[in-house]
Amino acid sequence: MSIGVYGLGRFGFFWAKLLSRYFNVKGFSRNPEREAPPGVKRVDEHELLDQNVIFLCVSISAMEEVLRRIGGRLKPDTLIIDTCSVKVYPAGLMEEILPGNVRIIASHPMFGPDSARDGLNGLPMIMWPLRNSDREFDFWSDFFKGIGLKVLKMDPDSHDREAAFTQGITHYIGRVIADLDLKESEIATVGYRKLLEIVAQTCNDPWQLFIDLQHFNPYTAIMREKLHSSIDRIMKKLDSL
Amino acid sequence: MSIGVYGLGRFGFFWAKLLSRYFNVKGFSRNPEREAPPGVKRVDEHELLDQNVIFLCVSISAMEEVLRRIGGRLKPDTLIIDTCSVKVYPAGLMEEILPGNVRIIASHPMFGPDSARDGLNGLPMIMWPLRNSDREFDFWSDFFKGIGLKVLKMDPDSHDREAAFTQGITHYIGRVIADLDLKESEIATVGYRKLLEIVAQTCNDPWQLFIDLQHFNPYTAIMREKLHSSIDRIMKKLDSL
Repeated sequence: MSIGVYGLGRFGFFWAKLLSRYFNVKGFSRNPEREAPPGVKRVDEHELLDQNVIFLCVSISAMEEVLRRIGGRLKPDTLIIDTCSVKVYPAGLMEEILPGNVRIIASHPMFGPDSARDGLNGLPMIMWPLRNSDREFDFWSDFFKGIGLKVLKMDPDSHDREAAFTQGITHYIGRVIADLDLKESEIATVGYRKLLEIVAQTCNDPWQLFIDLQHFNPYTAIMREKLHSSIDRIMKKLDSL
Repeated sequence: MSIGVYGLGRFGFFWAKLLSRYFNVKGFSRNPEREAPPGVKRVDEHELLDQNVIFLCVSISAMEEVLRRIGGRLKPDTLIIDTCSVKVYPAGLMEEILPGNVRIIASHPMFGPDSARDGLNGLPMIMWPLRNSDREFDFWSDFFKGIGLKVLKMDPDSHDREAAFTQGITHYIGRVIADLDLKESEIATVGYRKLLEIVAQTCNDPWQLFIDLQHFNPYTAIMREKLHSSIDRIMKKLDSL
């Protein structure tokens, strides 16, 4: 089995490096300045598309363009596994654009270089079969479980609904608080230190990921509306005193 | 030296218990249902006011009433140390209401039963001399340092300004997120778990503390305005895409 990672941004670099502990991994990025991590061979796009299993680690907003670009150049029975932080949108695109002889699994590793710093144990990873054999789904599911992840089979719509009110709201709060430009403080309480950790962690991720999380998850708009309603309710309680 | 703790709510109970590891501590609450922790003698108000050093652990909004109630009944040279989470307001009240022969130190132990669960080490404690001898200020400052706290001498205005944008914003975010009624989730990311910890910790404190933090700190209104402006700015960036 030969493994390729398409996209070597912050997450792709991390992902290729992680997989290279267990597999022979090749990496490619459309950006010539992106390097592959040590242990991963940087190849050209043609060679990358020749691998049996290809993880897509491109931004959500780049998915359509990338799928149209690679769809006709994949070998029959190539397994494509996306890693997008939203699922309904890329799952629909993959089913629509990728040729019928290409296999597809949707996945969302719900962690990254920051949150996995202390190890992978118990970190959540969502998987959903779209067009694949049970055998290959089980293989990857077992592999991810084997390296310590908490693998959950969840359909794209359920994922997006739940992720909007967990990951989505966390990134939203993180970006809002970052905009306030809060500082480290000598009188920081334990809770405030946690708030700063959320800011640091969410803002280490690319701005594009934040935008895409808020834009391509159909439930984040509802999350933001509900959050703003909660602010209004709390403000009314304060004002009525 | 005899020590009294006036007020046995969530914080007063915690504080009396903490001090009783080192001193003989008596406790009183206006609420007859409030019990003293093990090791602390529950006394009546008259006996409590007979102690040399009295920590006030009443809610910020009860300070004026309590000071008027006890002011004329204190022995000369009694040392009053408040523990309010805002400082300008109670410092002004104490100086105005307490008789001139009563000594006063303003303090804010910036932790509570939740945040001190893993020990006191490095937790911040603000102190400010209002009407006292250097010797007694140093005694208490050294004592709190000796049990592991990070004691900082900070004037009430600086405290309130900085606390609004650290403790104040954390409690505000905690209450807003709590209003959203978010749930534990199987797909919780590391950041989301931190957000839930903030909610749990801030909402374990009494609702009255939240209200008082937002109401009696002159800088929290500015903090909320700035936070709402940040939300507007982030929303505009999202809407402009």
